[in-house]
Order: sequence, then structure tokens, then C-alpha cells
Amino acid sequence: MINDSFGSDNHSGVHTEILKAMEKVNVGFSIAYGDDEYTKRAIEKFYEHFGREIDVYFLYNGTATNILGLKAVVDSFNSIICAETAHLNVHECCGPEKFIGCKLTTIKTDDGKLTVEKIKPYLTGFGDPHVAQPKVISITQPTELGTLYSVKEIKKLADFAHKNKMLLHVDGARLSNAAAALNLGFKEITKDAGVDLLSFGGTKNGMMFGEAVVFFDKKLSKNFEYIRKQGMQLASKMRYISAQFEAFLSNDLWLKNAKHANEMAKLLYEKIKNITEIKVTQKVECNAVFVMIPKKYIPTIRSKYFFHVFDEMNSIARFMCSYNTTRKDVIVLSEIIKKAVLEK
Amino acid sequence: MINDSFGSDNHSGVHTEILKAMEKVNVGFSIAYGDDEYTKRAIEKFYEHFGREIDVYFLYNGTATNILGLKAVVDSFNSIICAETAHLNVHECCGPEKFIGCKLTTIKTDDGKLTVEKIKPYLTGFGDPHVAQPKVISITQPTELGTLYSVKEIKKLADFAHKNKMLLHVDGARLSNAAAALNLGFKEITKDAGVDLLSFGGTKNGMMFGEAVVFFDKKLSKNFEYIRKQGMQLASKMRYISAQFEAFLSNDLWLKNAKHANEMAKLLYEKIKNITEIKVTQKVECNAVFVMIPKKYIPTIRSKYFFHVFDEMNSIARFMCSYNTTRKDVIVLSEIIKKAVLEK
Amino acid sequence: MINDSFGSDNHSGVHTEILKAMEKVNVGFSIAYGDDEYTKRAIEKFYEHFGREIDVYFLYNGTATNILGLKAVVDSFNSIICAETAHLNVHECCGPEKFIGCKLTTIKTDDGKLTVEKIKPYLTGFGDPHVAQPKVISITQPTELGTLYSVKEIKKLADFAHKNKMLLHVDGARLSNAAAALNLGFKEITKDAGVDLLSFGGTKNGMMFGEAVVFFDKKLSKNFEYIRKQGMQLASKMRYISAQFEAFLSNDLWLKNAKHANEMAKLLYEKIKNITEIKVTQKVECNAVFVMIPKKYIPTIRSKYFFHVFDEMNSIARFMCSYNTTRKDVIVLSEIIKKAVLEK
Amino acid sequence: MINDSFGSDNHSGVHTEILKAMEKVNVGFSIAYGDDEYTKRAIEKFYEHFGREIDVYFLYNGTATNILGLKAVVDSFNSIICAETAHLNVHECCGPEKFIGCKLTTIKTDDGKLTVEKIKPYLTGFGDPHVAQPKVISITQPTELGTLYSVKEIKKLADFAHKNKMLLHVDGARLSNAAAALNLGFKEITKDAGVDLLSFGGTKNGMMFGEAVVFFDKKLSKNFEYIRKQGMQLASKMRYISAQFEAFLSNDLWLKNAKHANEMAKLLYEKIKNITEIKVTQKVECNAVFVMIPKKYIPTIRSKYFFHVFDEMNSIARFMCSYNTTRKDVIVLSEIIKKAVLEK
Repeated sequence: MINDSFGSDNHSGVHTEILKAMEKVNVGFSIAYGDDEYTKRAIEKFYEHFGREIDVYFLYNGTATNILGLKAVVDSFNSIICAETAHLNVHECCGPEKFIGCKLTTIKTDDGKLTVEKIKPYLTGFGDPHVAQPKVISITQPTELGTLYSVKEIKKLADFAHKNKMLLHVDGARLSNAAAALNLGFKEITKDAGVDLLSFGGTKNGMMFGEAVVFFDKKLSKNFEYIRKQGMQLASKMRYISAQFEAFLSNDLWLKNAKHANEMAKLLYEKIKNITEIKVTQKVECNAVFVMIPKKYIPTIRSKYFFHVFDEMNSIARFMCSYNTTRKDVIVLSEIIKKAVLEK
Repeated sequence: MINDSFGSDNHSGVHTEILKAMEKVNVGFSIAYGDDEYTKRAIEKFYEHFGREIDVYFLYNGTATNILGLKAVVDSFNSIICAETAHLNVHECCGPEKFIGCKLTTIKTDDGKLTVEKIKPYLTGFGDPHVAQPKVISITQPTELGTLYSVKEIKKLADFAHKNKMLLHVDGARLSNAAAALNLGFKEITKDAGVDLLSFGGTKNGMMFGEAVVFFDKKLSKNFEYIRKQGMQLASKMRYISAQFEAFLSNDLWLKNAKHANEMAKLLYEKIKNITEIKVTQKVECNAVFVMIPKKYIPTIRSKYFFHVFDEMNSIARFMCSYNTTRKDVIVLSEIIKKAVLEK
Repeated sequence: MINDSFGSDNHSGVHTEILKAMEKVNVGFSIAYGDDEYTKRAIEKFYEHFGREIDVYFLYNGTATNILGLKAVVDSFNSIICAETAHLNVHECCGPEKFIGCKLTTIKTDDGKLTVEKIKPYLTGFGDPHVAQPKVISITQPTELGTLYSVKEIKKLADFAHKNKMLLHVDGARLSNAAAALNLGFKEITKDAGVDLLSFGGTKNGMMFGEAVVFFDKKLSKNFEYIRKQGMQLASKMRYISAQFEAFLSNDLWLKNAKHANEMAKLLYEKIKNITEIKVTQKVECNAVFVMIPKKYIPTIRSKYFFHVFDEMNSIARFMCSYNTTRKDVIVLSEIIKKAVLEK
Repeated sequence: MINDSFGSDNHSGVHTEILKAMEKVNVGFSIAYGDDEYTKRAIEKFYEHFGREIDVYFLYNGTATNILGLKAVVDSFNSIICAETAHLNVHECCGPEKFIGCKLTTIKTDDGKLTVEKIKPYLTGFGDPHVAQPKVISITQPTELGTLYSVKEIKKLADFAHKNKMLLHVDGARLSNAAAALNLGFKEITKDAGVDLLSFGGTKNGMMFGEAVVFFDKKLSKNFEYIRKQGMQLASKMRYISAQFEAFLSNDLWLKNAKHANEMAKLLYEKIKNITEIKVTQKVECNAVFVMIPKKYIPTIRSKYFFHVFDEMNSIARFMCSYNTTRKDVIVLSEIIKKAVLEK
């Protein structure tokens, strides 16, 4: 049997604290669709972390969180600027285009990160009805390539967006890993840095399902209840999402989980960085390690540990660590890689 | 504190057998998005119940199951014929229109049931490009008014649909209750009766979340994987839906749950049918009891047991029973109703 | 050869005054997409008729004018209330659903006219995210059944709409015929009566192509330039629409054309109203005559003059008169009808 | 007054032969929506040029022709590969995304032309439901940069598309100019080269309005009548589009017009190619001349002749010639450019 500890952080199971929290709310009847006490408590937790001037909504998954959050602030004739590697662009099967009607304007990057300089040339056609009107800059934090935006970098993008009457969206499917890596709170790396709306992830850091859209300006969310329902993402038995978020955001569970995942990635990096036949292609700042491995070695390694080849053309593998990736698995994997490469 | 045992069958918690099954699969890593062993086993259970010539996909909720299933077989220039009371029409916030682009042609009924006679006048404009082309007849089994289609009635609708090159869709959010009431298997009341595609519900009968689209003709589902993903309904940690369905479809759990809910509705009906001030407005065939109660009595009753006033204009209350509605609650409720009405 | 003078008012050709106006602007180069002098002049004509507080946009056809105008004021989670017979509902191939995403809530009527009383039962679910939110009442003036709303009736609907935070839209594909019949100006029967936005028709009253969306509140139109372009309705050589509208709205051309069409319908009515075998089913208030004619007579009559059988089930024919329907054709048609019926 | 002979080929008026043809059909009544004799005759003309195995539909404008033609063959979960400069991508206000739901995958080019080599890296993710499925390669002939594909180049792209189970679409808004430049017939540069569907333009070469979708495989067009109507592009008085196309495709009118426009562009090129301060940036193969002109000279030149600055950042002007651009205007323009540049 293949071990897939490094396939993705959503190959992990549910953290026991979270599962316990779900069991705990499984008593009696409870009003559906989020008007229950458990959901109020979970929202209170979001207030603790982000302040009370937010509007937060729970959804089933990350793709929907991105698409429906953006739908709330983007018209069909708008464009969203994002990196070519953005999940929004690559892995949502043109859901944004389908559900919003808008265009994604994609920008090539080496590290998955947008900068003001890279965006500038694409901000044309304001006021010209032939041209999709730029409305949102969407960044992923950490990026799909495991890299991080500093608070300063986010602020710069936010200022630039606002100067152009645009908004800054953060796809934070792994925001916990970013906060842990930056050693900062959620609010400091989002609201305080000028972010306008956030996709906040739970599933990739120990939850079973459930993500949240966080609006930092309540004017942006005024229609979101309808958008969520029409967008097929209003959970009837909401309490089971809420219970997860309450546990996730209590007692630093999110932080412990994220820190561990990040550390495992760092450890893997340390163990393999000196193998000359392979090459780590991105900074290891969170819980992912991207490694160029000659094609011939891949089957051997993969026969022991499952992982995704992220970039087939350049034979770049992605090793993703999770809250429950063990130190032992990391070490064994690094040895398998070493052995595969040397044996050849 | 108000007891809401009769608010909706999705106010219930998760059946302990199902919760146990979810805990059981919470071990180690598992490939995401449905390529896992647990999902294979759950699909196998569907084969047991429906035969192997089906294609089945798991989604998060019922609204999505209806909309995305229909999206697979309906073009944007098509119309779907349904009852005016259909969930599809009333309670999905025009999600079908938004996501499919199509028209819902709605038909007034007294009991929530469509018939060939009622549909016929609406089947016009075939071949006329100005007119939305009728493509699907969608029925709910049991209906939103708690009534049931017999197998014969379904067959008649299916034959009629096929004769007109249309398809028959069943919204089976509560299909278990129908099967239990008809004392028949799932296959007998769907595939064998000519149904082409089915929204199969779990959440309203003891599951936490998770519904299924069942295609009875594999040609209909050929693009469904893309539709599900684009439709924001592909669960990453799929095993937790699959585990639920496996338990739900094993050891007659679905049947026991549904039977009990149906019995509680019958019991409530027996207890209140002779109260002259109120009137049961629909046949009690499954787990719902619709009762016209003069407006003035409603606050008193509702202060003890939560329920929905389904039709404000005619003051018709809906009492929905669930797998965990207790005999005691039914009796207490019936006494509260009696008392409220007599005291006046 | 069959004469189709009564098929539809869009079977007519282009009025010579209008064709001349098009030829007149066919000189040299002209900036495209509406930034030209001809378009400014045509808009000035709209100001003359409707006052200057309007925003007006030219489009190719009536279907687009309805759909895109409504798109400007309706969100995807909204519903539009209209008569079951509305062009919007019956003859736009679910374009409104596709392009706006919204629901059409349709109301049965005998004469194609909505009233406050008929609408009231459908205004439910405000604030409930499961339910499409009512946003617009859309009426057709004159209706698809040739009947007319009085100014008083429109005012009542407008007040009712506004009281419910909704808007009143008028599909005025034949608004000229209504104004002519009511002996009032365009402004009096729209803006002054509380209408919020208008689809203003030209093609059915002597133009070649070209319709206009008129917004009576500029806040409603703020994104319309993008909506029109994205909606595939921005004409490059706009001057040829503008020239038509300028001529149409000058020297009472619209009025003369409409009056004549209305008179021809009245004449037809007078000539056939006493034939006992047939029955005029709607008031003849504009340019349409609806007549129940037993099925057996229809082929004979139709072999001389083309017309549409509007309602196959009840065998109701529609005779539509146009600006160039001749008195002679009306008389000959009436005689053919008489003869067909008597010969039997 | 500014002369805008070089602004765009849609700043031209209507060719007199075409206007005459429109007047000629302006007699009596004619069945609407394309079921008329004039439309049959126009379609016959298309058969003459493209062979009889085609399906052709008339629409109002080019944006719609691209979007609705592609809608017929593309599902919402598909992607369309096109050049970053494609009209489809830049100048249709994300209409393709809105109306089809699909993704445009855009490729950077220097000359507006796609090649197999450029496309290859983007053809990934076939069969992966997370990824938009590539379905169409869309090229513009001649390109938005005035360059031409040879028949050999088109064939290569068509073969490549078909090998990948994709289709080749040609945006032929200016196809006449391409055919004239290549000295080939329409069929030779489309159907015979493997093109699957074509947007065929008329407006930019002397028509008033009206474009056509040509399907080279009738299976592709089976739903197009509904798509056109729902897409708000079914003209009621169709005869006025048909009459234009009949004239356009008769007596080599299209060819004479296109040849002249091409010649004028060549002439302009000859006149300015040796001015050292400016630089022609694209091959002049059809009717457009792209010239890098230092920013400071532009106002002077533009005060005499209107033209678009196509690329603000690099100060690249586009001079577009038309069927009625005069030799004199070309010479005067070239002298103005020369003078502006020298005077500085």
C-alpha cells in the first residue's frame, strides 16, 4: 500500500479535536441553515480573530468560497487579475467564469506572487465598454507554489488596488500556514494589511469540510445570503460546520496544526537540499516543497509515497505536508529520494 | 426553550450509526476527490440498491444535486416542467435558472403532484426557436406536500416524457420515506418505473450532509465530473460523505429511519384528525402533516413546538417528522394543539 | 402567392421616410459605436419626447432590449413578475433566465394585463435567502393580446411596485400603438405614470431594426454600456439605427404609422364582429384582432392571407395590422372570413 | 473637422451597391425571422462560395457571431485557446465568459498568430475534472495585428486541433481581406484547410450590419437556431441582412472592396516605411498598418486624421484602411506624418 502523506494536505483525515467537537453538537434538534447557537458561537470566534467589523459566511468548500465571495463584489463585465498559477484559474474548472461571467486576467510569475509592477500593464481599458473592467486583484496566501507574501507586500497590493478603485481578495485556503510562518495573527495579515475579502480555509488544516468567506467591509456582503443559497452552498445542518470552526479557532488548534505542517516541509527541505541530482525550485516558506526531479527517478519514489507531479513538462514534484505528517515519514521519504537518485 | 422536533427533518442531528461510520474512516491519509476505497464501497452499495447500470455521484446538498443533475441533461434553451410547489422552483433561489440558464415551467396543483393531463397544455412550441424547448419533467417523491406518487403514476409520466423525447427527473430528497411508505425498493420506484435521473437524499433522513445524483443511463452523465467540479460540489475529503452513504444503505438503516418518521406523522394525524377547528389539508402518506390552523391559535402552539407555517395566506402549518421524532413529542404536540383550540 | 399583411407588424417593410433617412447619413466616415453626431441627434429626439432626465441606449432588437434593460436592474437572485403571456416569458427562448439568471414568476390572465390584486399573492419570501427576491413587475403596453393599460392602471402598478421596493418595467415593443390609442404622449404613459424603465420599440412600426432602452432614473443605467457590449448588442455602425430613430420621432411619423395600424384593426373588427360562427376574444384597443375561428375554417382563410394561430388549443387566430396594411386588404380579408364560414 | 478614414474599417459607410440591394427588397410584406425568399437567396450565395455542406446563420454583429458560434460547440467547462490579442479576448467585454461560461486561455504572440508550438504547453489536464477542458483553437484571419495565416499554417493548426479532439474556429471579421490578400476563395482558406466553424464578417467591408456563422459540419449546428434566438440575435426583418449578403457575395463586390482596402494599406506602408523616426511593427499583409510613433508626434497627426493608438504603452498607432479609403487620403496622411516627425 502506498502512503500518501505528501499527496495533499486534504488527504489528511480530520483532527480528533475537531471530530470530537462535531460529536458534541450532535444532540437533539437544531434550527437549520445557520440560525442556530453553534453557528453564533463559531462566528464569535471569527470576531475574536478578525475583529467585529466583519461579515462571515460558512460554505462547504474552497472552490465555492473563492467563486461566491468574488461573485459578491464582481460584475459579469469585470475582470479579476490573478497569477497564472492561481487555484482560481487552474483548478476550478472555469467555475469563476461560469458563475460570475467575468474574465480572469492571468499573469505569469516564477513564484506564484503578484506585484504591482507585474499588474500595471494589465490595468487598461478603464471606462471602455469593449474591455472587461478590472475590479479585483486576487492573490493566494500562501501561494500555490508554497511561497509567502509579507505584510508589506500585501499592503502595497492593497493600496494599489484601492487607488485603482479595485479590491484585494485573498485566497486563504491555507491561511493558517501563512499566519504560522509569518508569526502573525489572521487580522494582521488580512484586514490590517488592506485586504477587502478573504477565502478562509479549514479543510486543508484538519477540518472535515467547511470554509468561510470573510468580508472586511459589510457593504460588500449585502447580498451574500442570496448568493450563497443560489450558489448551492447553504448547508442545512450548518451546526456541523460551525462546530468545526469553533474548535479550529480555539486553543490555537489552527496554529499548532499549521506550525507542524510548516516544520515538516522545512525538515524535508533540509534533508534533500544537498542532493545534487534534484533541485528545490521554490522557497520553502510554508508546508509545500517543490522539487525538480528527473523523470526517470519519479516512479521509484512514487511507489513508496504518493505525491503529485505539479509540472509535468519540467518534472517538478510537489510534496505537501500536513498537520499529521510525521517526522518519520519525512525522513523515510528523503532517504527514498536519495536512494533512488544514487542507485541510478 | 422551544422544541423544534417538527420544524424540518433537517433539524435532526446525525444518526449515531452514521456518525460512527464517519469516525471509523478517520484513519490516516486518503486520496481526495473520490478516488478512495471508501467511495468505491459506497458506490457498491448504490449498485446493490439500484443495479449496476447506473452512474452515481456524491455532492454536498440537495439544491446542488437537483441543479447539477439537471444541468447534465438540460440545455440553456430548454424548459423543465415542474409543480409550482417544487423545491426546485420555490426554495432554490433561482439557482436552476442561474446555473442552467433554462426556464422552469410551473404547474398549479392541489397536492403537489403532476399528471399527464396537467402537463399536456404546456408542451407547445417544439421546434420553434422563439420558445424554450421542453426537455425534462421533474417530480418530487414524496412531494413537498407530503403526498406520494404510485409506481403506476410514475410510469405514466415516464412514458409520456419519453414519447415527447423528454426525460423524467425525480427530486428524491426524501426518497427513503417514499420507498418505506410504498413498501418497495429504491429501484422499483425509480429505474424500473422509467425514471431517467434521480436526486437521492440522505441529509433529511439521518445523514450529516451528502446527497447523490443517480443517472439511470450512462449517456446522460458523460460530462458530470466536470459539471460537479465547476458547480463547486466536488468534496475533497470525499470519504466522509461516502462513509455516511455506506452506513445509510446498509442494514436497512435508511428504511428504519424513514419508517419511523412516517409512523410519527401517521400518529400525529390520528391524534388531531378529529379536532373540528383545524383541518388536515393533504393526505398523510409520508412524514409530513399539513394542517390548516386558524391564525389566532398558532402563536400558542408555536411557543411550545417550532414548526413552519407553510402557507401564510391560508394559515397552513407543516409538521415534519423525522427519524428521531419521539412518540412522546407527537402526543404532547397533539395535546397542545387540542388545548389551544379548545381554550379559545 | 399568399399575402401576409396580417402575419405580424414585423412582416412589413421599412417606411420610406425611414429608409430615406438611412440613405442620408450614408456619407463618408463616422466614428463607430455611437459616439457620432447622428446618434446625438437621435438622443435629442428622445429628450424631446421623454424629457432630459433619461438615459437612452440603442440596441438591435426587442428581445435584447427587454433582457439587457432588465439585466441592468435585476440580480441573478431576483424574480421578475410578468403575465404568463408576456413576450419575455413565451417568445424569448429563456433568454432572460440565461442572461440574467433570474426567475420569471408568471401570472395567468384573461387579457394579458397584470393587476395589483393578481400580483399580491406572489410577493412572498422577501428576505428569505431560499426564495428568489421579487424585484421587477414587467408589463407589456399594449399587451401581447392587443389590450391596453390606462394611465391610471399603470400608476397603480408603479405605486405598488415602489411600495415594495420594486421597479416597474414596460415592454413597449408597440408603445407607439398604445400612445396613439390613448391619445397621449410617450412621457405621459411612462415616466409620468411612474414607470422606471422602458423597452421602446421601432421595428414593429416601420423601422428596419433598432430598439431602445430608456431608463427614467440614471442610477439604474450606470453600468449599461458594459451590459450592452457584453450582451452583444453594441452596433458598430450605429448611425444607421440613430438615423431611423430620428426620422421615427420626427414629424409625428411614429404617430401616423401607429394610428393607421390601430384604425385598420378597428375596421377589421367592425367588419367581422357580427359573424356568429366566430368570436373576437379580446378588446380591440390597438392593432391586433384576436378571433376564435373554428379549426375547419382556418385553412381556407389562411390560403389567402397569412396569419398566426396564436392559441392552437382554442383555435384563436391573431390578425395583426401594420402601418402599411391597406383598407382594401382588411375588407378583402373580412369577406374571405365571412365566405369561408358561410360556405361550410 | 477631423477625417477618420483610418480609424477603423467600421467607420466607413455602406457601399452603394449594398444600400441599393436593401432598398430593392423593401417591397410589401415578408415573413419574419429568416423564413423568407431573400434569405434563401443569400444562403444560396454562401453555398456558391463555401459548398453546400455548410450550415449558415445570419446575426447582427461580429461579437455575437464569435460568441454564439462558439457557444454551439463549447461547453461551460471547456476552454478556448486564443491569442492574447484576439478580439474575443480583448474587445468583447468578457461576453464569451458570460454567455458560454468557459475560459479563454490566452497566448502571448508578437504578430497575433498562434502556432502549434505555442499552443502545446497549454494543452494539459485532459480528463482532469479540476481543469477546464480545451475544446477549441480560435484564430483570427487576418489577425488583429493585420497579419495573415497561410493555408498551410491553418491546415497545421486544424490537424493539431483534430488530433486533440478539438475544433478550429476562425474569427473572419475581415475574411474578405485575407482571401483577397491570399488570392484564394473563401472555401480554400477555411473549409478546405480544415476549419470547423467560421465567423464571417460583412460590416467591416461595406455592409451596414450583419455577420454570419458558417458551420462546416452540420452536427455542430444542430441547436444553433435556439442559441441564436436565446442569444438575442434573431433579426425579425431578416431580409435586410440577407439582401446585403446577397449583394456582398455577388459580382465580386466583397473582393473589389477588400482588394482596395489592402492596396491602400500597402500604399501607406510604402509611403512611410522609410521615415526613420517611426517604425512599422507588423507585416502589412491586409488592410492595417501598425506604426510605432513617438508619443510626442501623435497629437499633431491625430488632429488631421483620426486613428487609434492600439498599444498605449509602446505608442503603437493603427491605421486601418477601408473599401472607401481614398488614395488621396493615404498620401495626405503620409505627408502629415512625415511633416510632424521632421518638424519636431
